[in-house]
Amino acid sequence: MAPRTPKLVVPIDLKKKPWEQKLPLHNRWHPEIPPVATVNTGEVFRVEMVDWTAGAVKDDNSASDVKHLDLSTVHYLSGPIKVVDEEGEAAKPGDLLAVEICNLGPLPGDEWGFTAIFDRENGGGFLTDHFPCATKAIWYFEGIYAYSPHIPGVRFPGITHPGIIGTAPSMELLNIWNEREKELEENGLKSLRLCEVLHSRPLANLPSTKGCLLGKIPEGTQEWEKIANEAARTIPGRENGGNCDIKNLSRGSKIYLPVFVEGANFSTGDMHFSQGDGEVSFCGAIEMSGFLELKCEIIRGGMKEYLTPMGPTPLHVNPIFEIGPMEPRFSEWLVFEGISVDESGRQHYLDASVAYKRAVLNAIDYLSKFGYSKEQVYLLLSCCPCEGRISGIVDAPNAVATLAIPTAIFDQDIRPKTKKVPVGPRVVRNPDIPRCSYDGDLPITKNPGATG
Amino acid sequence: MAPRTPKLVVPIDLKKKPWEQKLPLHNRWHPEIPPVATVNTGEVFRVEMVDWTAGAVKDDNSASDVKHLDLSTVHYLSGPIKVVDEEGEAAKPGDLLAVEICNLGPLPGDEWGFTAIFDRENGGGFLTDHFPCATKAIWYFEGIYAYSPHIPGVRFPGITHPGIIGTAPSMELLNIWNEREKELEENGLKSLRLCEVLHSRPLANLPSTKGCLLGKIPEGTQEWEKIANEAARTIPGRENGGNCDIKNLSRGSKIYLPVFVEGANFSTGDMHFSQGDGEVSFCGAIEMSGFLELKCEIIRGGMKEYLTPMGPTPLHVNPIFEIGPMEPRFSEWLVFEGISVDESGRQHYLDASVAYKRAVLNAIDYLSKFGYSKEQVYLLLSCCPCEGRISGIVDAPNAVATLAIPTAIFDQDIRPKTKKVPVGPRVVRNPDIPRCSYDGDLPITKNPGATG
Amino acid sequence: MAPRTPKLVVPIDLKKKPWEQKLPLHNRWHPEIPPVATVNTGEVFRVEMVDWTAGAVKDDNSASDVKHLDLSTVHYLSGPIKVVDEEGEAAKPGDLLAVEICNLGPLPGDEWGFTAIFDRENGGGFLTDHFPCATKAIWYFEGIYAYSPHIPGVRFPGITHPGIIGTAPSMELLNIWNEREKELEENGLKSLRLCEVLHSRPLANLPSTKGCLLGKIPEGTQEWEKIANEAARTIPGRENGGNCDIKNLSRGSKIYLPVFVEGANFSTGDMHFSQGDGEVSFCGAIEMSGFLELKCEIIRGGMKEYLTPMGPTPLHVNPIFEIGPMEPRFSEWLVFEGISVDESGRQHYLDASVAYKRAVLNAIDYLSKFGYSKEQVYLLLSCCPCEGRISGIVDAPNAVATLAIPTAIFDQDIRPKTKKVPVGPRVVRNPDIPRCSYDGDLPITKNPGATG
Amino acid sequence: MAPRTPKLVVPIDLKKKPWEQKLPLHNRWHPEIPPVATVNTGEVFRVEMVDWTAGAVKDDNSASDVKHLDLSTVHYLSGPIKVVDEEGEAAKPGDLLAVEICNLGPLPGDEWGFTAIFDRENGGGFLTDHFPCATKAIWYFEGIYAYSPHIPGVRFPGITHPGIIGTAPSMELLNIWNEREKELEENGLKSLRLCEVLHSRPLANLPSTKGCLLGKIPEGTQEWEKIANEAARTIPGRENGGNCDIKNLSRGSKIYLPVFVEGANFSTGDMHFSQGDGEVSFCGAIEMSGFLELKCEIIRGGMKEYLTPMGPTPLHVNPIFEIGPMEPRFSEWLVFEGISVDESGRQHYLDASVAYKRAVLNAIDYLSKFGYSKEQVYLLLSCCPCEGRISGIVDAPNAVATLAIPTAIFDQDIRPKTKKVPVGPRVVRNPDIPRCSYDGDLPITKNPGATG
Repeated sequence: MAPRTPKLVVPIDLKKKPWEQKLPLHNRWHPEIPPVATVNTGEVFRVEMVDWTAGAVKDDNSASDVKHLDLSTVHYLSGPIKVVDEEGEAAKPGDLLAVEICNLGPLPGDEWGFTAIFDRENGGGFLTDHFPCATKAIWYFEGIYAYSPHIPGVRFPGITHPGIIGTAPSMELLNIWNEREKELEENGLKSLRLCEVLHSRPLANLPSTKGCLLGKIPEGTQEWEKIANEAARTIPGRENGGNCDIKNLSRGSKIYLPVFVEGANFSTGDMHFSQGDGEVSFCGAIEMSGFLELKCEIIRGGMKEYLTPMGPTPLHVNPIFEIGPMEPRFSEWLVFEGISVDESGRQHYLDASVAYKRAVLNAIDYLSKFGYSKEQVYLLLSCCPCEGRISGIVDAPNAVATLAIPTAIFDQDIRPKTKKVPVGPRVVRNPDIPRCSYDGDLPITKNPGATG
Repeated sequence: MAPRTPKLVVPIDLKKKPWEQKLPLHNRWHPEIPPVATVNTGEVFRVEMVDWTAGAVKDDNSASDVKHLDLSTVHYLSGPIKVVDEEGEAAKPGDLLAVEICNLGPLPGDEWGFTAIFDRENGGGFLTDHFPCATKAIWYFEGIYAYSPHIPGVRFPGITHPGIIGTAPSMELLNIWNEREKELEENGLKSLRLCEVLHSRPLANLPSTKGCLLGKIPEGTQEWEKIANEAARTIPGRENGGNCDIKNLSRGSKIYLPVFVEGANFSTGDMHFSQGDGEVSFCGAIEMSGFLELKCEIIRGGMKEYLTPMGPTPLHVNPIFEIGPMEPRFSEWLVFEGISVDESGRQHYLDASVAYKRAVLNAIDYLSKFGYSKEQVYLLLSCCPCEGRISGIVDAPNAVATLAIPTAIFDQDIRPKTKKVPVGPRVVRNPDIPRCSYDGDLPITKNPGATG
Repeated sequence: MAPRTPKLVVPIDLKKKPWEQKLPLHNRWHPEIPPVATVNTGEVFRVEMVDWTAGAVKDDNSASDVKHLDLSTVHYLSGPIKVVDEEGEAAKPGDLLAVEICNLGPLPGDEWGFTAIFDRENGGGFLTDHFPCATKAIWYFEGIYAYSPHIPGVRFPGITHPGIIGTAPSMELLNIWNEREKELEENGLKSLRLCEVLHSRPLANLPSTKGCLLGKIPEGTQEWEKIANEAARTIPGRENGGNCDIKNLSRGSKIYLPVFVEGANFSTGDMHFSQGDGEVSFCGAIEMSGFLELKCEIIRGGMKEYLTPMGPTPLHVNPIFEIGPMEPRFSEWLVFEGISVDESGRQHYLDASVAYKRAVLNAIDYLSKFGYSKEQVYLLLSCCPCEGRISGIVDAPNAVATLAIPTAIFDQDIRPKTKKVPVGPRVVRNPDIPRCSYDGDLPITKNPGATG
Repeated sequence: MAPRTPKLVVPIDLKKKPWEQKLPLHNRWHPEIPPVATVNTGEVFRVEMVDWTAGAVKDDNSASDVKHLDLSTVHYLSGPIKVVDEEGEAAKPGDLLAVEICNLGPLPGDEWGFTAIFDRENGGGFLTDHFPCATKAIWYFEGIYAYSPHIPGVRFPGITHPGIIGTAPSMELLNIWNEREKELEENGLKSLRLCEVLHSRPLANLPSTKGCLLGKIPEGTQEWEKIANEAARTIPGRENGGNCDIKNLSRGSKIYLPVFVEGANFSTGDMHFSQGDGEVSFCGAIEMSGFLELKCEIIRGGMKEYLTPMGPTPLHVNPIFEIGPMEPRFSEWLVFEGISVDESGRQHYLDASVAYKRAVLNAIDYLSKFGYSKEQVYLLLSCCPCEGRISGIVDAPNAVATLAIPTAIFDQDIRPKTKKVPVGPRVVRNPDIPRCSYDGDLPITKNPGATG
C-alpha cells in the first residue's frame, strides 16, 4: 500500500555538459543509440531534460548567443528509454506505445526561459525575410504565469509541454528519411515546387558528424562514425513523432507512438513553458529545461490496429495524441486572417503556409500599434498561447488561415475601438528587445502598402 | 422605452427563386450592385438568407443533385446592405465596419442541412484525388444538436455561423482581384510553384456571365452585361472578407470589415449550422438557410488606424474578427497529425497544406476502423466542430499540421485501447451515404501502404 | 426522409389573457387539471409560455406594477402535456420522464424582460429586511446579450432556462405537500427552528381560490372549487420538480422527472433569460415570455431504478438534471464570501442560508463602490450568471458560502487595485432604478459597521 | 537580470513533528504568535506545510487512526509570515493584503492523500447522523490525477488549493470571536434556532490548552498559558479568512485578506489535492502535505476602500477572492437537487443547509446503484470536483440546493438510461473502504422511504 513516488530515471545536472551527464544525452535519431534506462508499463517515472540548446542561450541582455548558436548540436534529448511490460517483455515493432503525461514543469531552481529569432543565415524563422536579425526575449516564471522584461505589458499562463517526444526509428525508416530529405536538398530548388515566397532557409538538415552526440556511444569510435553519418537530425517531426510542437500536449495528455524497434526506445526533450501554434520565430516557444512525469502502456499490435500507413510502406504512419482536460480558460479571442496572396500581391493556389504567413504579418502590424516593436510581437506570437488555424482549404484559389490571440494576456484593451488608439505602450519598462545586426545580403521582403 | 424587436431588413421566401425574392439576391462581388436595404448603426436588424445553392440540394437519398450542381450560380448572398450612422451619414471608404452577430440560426420551418463531396470534375474538394465521387449526407437539427440518418452514431452541438460576410469591393480592388486570379489561371501551372500534390481542381473562377445574379440589376441589360463580366466570384475569401469560413464566428462574435465603397454595402450568406476547420469536403459545412441578427458600428478612419496593408496597395488588407464567449464546451480531443510528406513518400518543404492533407487522411483511416465508410468520415470531419491547426511551420523540411476531434460527438469510445477494436459500427441505421459514380478519368491517388 | 419541424403544441398569443389562450394556462399543481396536449416520445415539439406574471409588469419607468402585483395568480404555466410512447402507451406512475431541452429563447417580437424586488409586505425577497421597497429594472436583449437602461455599464450573455418544469402530483403527493406546508404555516413560528434572521416573509402559500386558474376546468364550477381548494401553489420547488430555478438548465440539458400520474402531465413556465444562483431578489431572474423546443423519453420503471425516496414515502424523491455543453465561457471570477454570523454579530450554527446572505451583502456593498446604488447591484446579482456556492458546510460553527461573479460582465475593471477606486459609475445613463416607497412598518436591518 | 527562484521561507521536514520543525508550526489564531518569517511585496516565495493532522492519518488499510484522532491539535499551520513593502514598511491594520497563488502542489516524495469520515462522537461530518462510523480512503496521485485503491473506477484531475489561508486577528477581533462562539456553545441549544435536523455535533470549539501549539512561544511558559486560553481554534472560517475551503482557489488565484495586525502575519495550511464544494464528510478533501508559491501585494487602506463591515464593528468583514484561469474543463454534469424538507418529511423554511443535505443524500443513493457502497460515495462527493449550489433561496418555503457532479470522473456511464442499470461495479478491486464500528448510542437517521 506504499504510494509510489515517481522514480527519477533520467536525472540532469544543469552544471554539466550534455556529454557529462550521468546518463549521457543524444541529439540524433538512430536505432543503434542504446537505451539509458528501462521503465515498466504502469509505473510513473520522472525524466529531466536540458533546454534544446543545453544552456547555450543565456539570461542576459544580448542576442549574440542566439546569432552564433551552433545549430548542428540541437536538440539535446533525454533517453532513449526502453519500455517493458509487467512480465518484463519489451515493446515490439508493430506495437503502439501510449505515454501519459502525468505532470511536467521547469526544473526547480531554473525557472526561466527564452524565445528567439534566429539570424537569417543561421536558421532563420517563418518570417526570416522580414525579420533577418537575431533577437531574443527572456521570460521569468511565476508559477503558471510567464512575464518578460523585454516585452512589457503581457503576462500569460503557459500550456507547458515537451516539444519533442518520439520513438527510435528502425534502420529501414531511417533510410526512408535520409533518402527523401537528401532528394529535397539536392533537387528541391529545381524540381519540386516550393512555397517559394516563404523564404530561403536550409531545405533540409542531413546527417552530419558535426555537433553529433550519441548517448552511450563514445565519440570517435568507428561505431560512432557510422551512426553519426546515418543518424537523422531532430529538427523536423517525422513518422516517429519527434519535434511535433503540439502546444496543447500538457498535463493529462497522452501520446500514442508507433514502435519501430525492440523496447520502443523513446526519447524526449525541448521543453516549452508555452508556445503559440506554428512556433513562428523558430526558436519560438519559451524554451527551458524541465521535467516530465510519465506513465507508459503498451498496446500490442496497435500500429496495425489503429494506424493506417499514409505512403509507400507500412512505416509511413504518424502518432496520435489525446489532449487532456487541464488548460487555461480564455474567454475572448481576437482573430487575424490571411489568404494565399503574398506581399507582392501575387496569387497562390490554396497555399495554407502563405495564408498563415499573411495572418501572422497582419497580427504583428496590428499589435505594433499598441506600443510594441514588430520584433516584440513576432516573439510574443511565437510563444503565447495563440491558435493557428486552417479555416478554409477548399475555396480556390485562396486558402484562409487564421491566428487567434486571447485578449486577456495584455494589460490593455487591444480590440479596435471608435476611440483613438493610445499612442505608445501603456507600460514601457524597456524600449525593445536585445537585437543583433544582420550582416548578410539576402533581400528583405518589403511591405509596399505599409506607410511607415 | 419600448424594446426594439430586430427589424427584418432582408426577408426570404423559401418557396421562391433567388431572383424572385422581394429583395433580389446576388452571387457576385461588384461595387455597382445597388444596396437593397439601409441600416443604422446601433440598431439590431435581421437578415434572412437561402442556403448557398438556394435549394438545389434536396433532402433525399440521392447524390445526383450534388453531382450535377451548377457551380456558376453560387453563393447566393443577401444584400448589399448600406450602413449609415445616427446622423444619417454613410460609412466611407477607409472606415472600419464593426458587425456584431447578436443571434443566428436556421430559418424556422427549414431545420435541416446537407454536407456533400463534389464530383472531381465539378468542384472536387480537398481530397478529391482520393474521393472523386459525388456524395451527400443530410443532417436534421434538434435545437443545438445535429444528427444524420447517413452517418449514424454521431450527434453534436453546432457552432452556427455565416460562411460569408463581406463588404463590396471598390472598382480598384476588384481589378486587383481579377488580374491576379487571371494570372494564376493562365500561367499558374507553368510559372507558379503550386502545391501540386493537392489535386487538380479549377485554379481560379474568373468572372462569367453564366449563372450570374446581380440583385436589382435587371438581367440582359447593358449594365448587367458589363458588371457580370467584371464581377468577382464569391468562392474565395479575399480582402473584403467574403467566404472566410471561420467556424467559430457565432453568437456574440464581431467582424471588423474594411470599407471600400460609400455605405460599406456588405452582404452575407452561406449559413453553416456547423463546420470543421478547413471545410475539407468543399461543400463541407452543414449547409442551410438561416437568419442573422446583426448590429453595426462605424469606426471612422479605422482602416488606417487598425489595418496595415500587406501587399502593393493600401487595399491589400484583411478583416479582423472577435470570437464571442458562447460555444460548446468539449473536454477531450483526439488529435491526428500530418507532416509535409505526401502519399508517394515525397518530401515537401514546410508545406502546411500537404501536412494538413496527411493529417485529415490519417483521421479518416483511423475513424473508419470504428464502423464508418471513409466517405462518411470525410463528410463528418468537414462539418463537425473539429479544429485544424498549424502546429509547427518552422522545422524544415516538415510542417506539422494537426486535426483535433472532440471525442464526445461519438456514441462510442474512439480512443485507442489495449482491448480489441469492436468490429463494425455500434449503431447501423444505414449502410452508407448516398453516392454517385465517378465517370471521369483523372487518376486516383493510391495509398500504397494501406492493406485493404 | 422529411425533416421534422418542431410541432407547436402550446401556442401563446401575447395579446390575450391567460384564460383566453387557445389552450388555457394554469397556475396550480393538481392531478385533475386535464392535459391540454399530447406528445410522443422522440418527437421535438414546441411550447410557448407567458412570463410568470402574464404581462402584469410593464416595460416602463415605474415600479408600482411590482408593488401592487397580485401574487395569488403566479406562476402561469403552459400545459399539462401528456406523454405517450411510440406504441401510444402513456407514461405511468413510477416511470421517469426524460425531457431534453433542444432549444429555447424569448418569444419573437417580445425580446425584453424585467427583474424586480418585491415590497416587503408583498412577497419580499432574500434581503427584504435590507431592501423593503418595490423596485424594478428592465432588460433588453441583443441576441445572447442583455443590457438594461436602469443598470448602466453591464452587459452579459444569458444562460436562458425555464424556471419551472414539473410533472403533475398524484393526489397522495399533493396531500403530503398541503399537510407539511400547513403545519409550517400554523406552527412554524412557534415550534420550528427557523432561519429567523433571514426575514419575516410569508411562511408558506397554501391553496387558495383567489387568483386560481385551472386550465380547462371552468371557473366557478363545483369541480373548480374543489380543485382550487386543494391545488398546490407553484412558488416552491417540490418532489415533482416545479420551481427549481436551476440557472444552467439551458440548451442541451435534460431533466429526469418522476411520474406520479398517468401521462406524466408535465407543465412548464417562468422563462428566464438569465438568473444568478439563488435568484436572490425573488423576482430576480430576467423574467420573460418564451418558447421551448423539447423532446421526451420515457424510462419505464425509472423512479425505482434511479431515485431513492428521501423521506417517509416512496413519493419523497427529487428530479435529476443533466447540464448540457452550451454555456458562455467566463475566464475570471471575483468571489465574495459569507460565514454564518449575522448582521448583529450573532453566531449561527452551520447555517448556509445565513452565510449566503452575508456573502450577497458583501458583494452588494463592494460593487456599490463602483458607481451603483445598492438596489442596482441587488437586482444585478439576482439575474446575472453568478454562482452561489456552499463552499464549506462542516467547520462548526461556520458554514462558508460564496458568491462568484464573472468580471467580464462589467465595462470597468472591478477588481481591488492599489490605485484608488474611481468615483462614480463609468457610464451613467440613468441615476438609478425605478423605485417605490415602502409604506409598512416592519423593522429594517441596520448594518452597524457601515459608515455611510 | 538574474531570474528569481522562489525563496523557501517555511521549510518542512516530514520526518519531524510540528514542534520540531525548523520554523515551528502553530494551530491557533492569536495576535501574539510571533511571525516566523518576513517576505517582501513583489517577491515569489515558497511555503511548505504538513497535512492538517501532521501525519496522524496513515497510508494503510485501517480507519482506527481516524477514529481516535485528537481533534484538539488541528490544523497545523505554516507561519505567521510578516509582509513588508519594498521600502521595508510593514502591512498595517486597515490595509488589504493581496496574496497570489503562483504555484502549488504536493510535497515531492509525499504524493498521496486521504479522505475520511469522522466518528460521530469525534467530529462527525455533514451526514454524521446517517454515517456515524469512522472510515477512510487513501488516494494516490499521478500528476494532475488522483485515484484510490478504496474507491475503484474513478480518477479525476484535482483543483489543488490550500484549505486555510488567513491573517492574524487583532485582540479585539479575537475577543469578538470568542464571545460569540461561547454564547453559541452555552445557549445555542436553548435559545438559538438551529438547523436541528442536521445532526448534533460540537456546537463550537472554544479555546483550549489541550493540543495547543503556538509556534515560537515555548509551551508551559506563562505567555503560552495566556495565549492558549485565548487563541481561537482554526476549525471555522472567520473574518480573517482561515478555513474557507474554497475549492477553486488554485493556481493563478488571488486572495484579498484584511489586515488586523502590524505585518499582516498570515498563515496557511490544510492543503487539499482536491475538494468538493461543502467538503461534506468533514475530513472531506484529499488531505495532503504540500507547498505553495506565493506573491504578496499590499493595498494601503484597502479595508476601508473595498470592504464594508457586515456587523456591529469595522472588523466584521470578509476576504475577497479572485479565481484564476487554470482549471480542468468538464463538459457534462449530472445534477442532484434537494429541497428544505427533511428525512422525516418535515417542512423547513428556506433552509439551504437542509436542502443541501437532501441533495447530497440523493446523490449518494443514486451513485450507490452503480456498484459503490454509500460510504464510498459520501467520501467521493467530499473530495471530487463537484459543485454545491444554492439554486433558489427565495421560493418559500423551499430552498433549492443542487450538487453537480462531472460525469467524466467515472469509468462508466452514470446517466439514467432506458436500459437496465448494470449490477455491481464495473471495476472491483476492493469490496469497500476501511471502516471502524460506531460504539456510541446516538440515534441514526433512517430513510423510511428507502426499500433496502
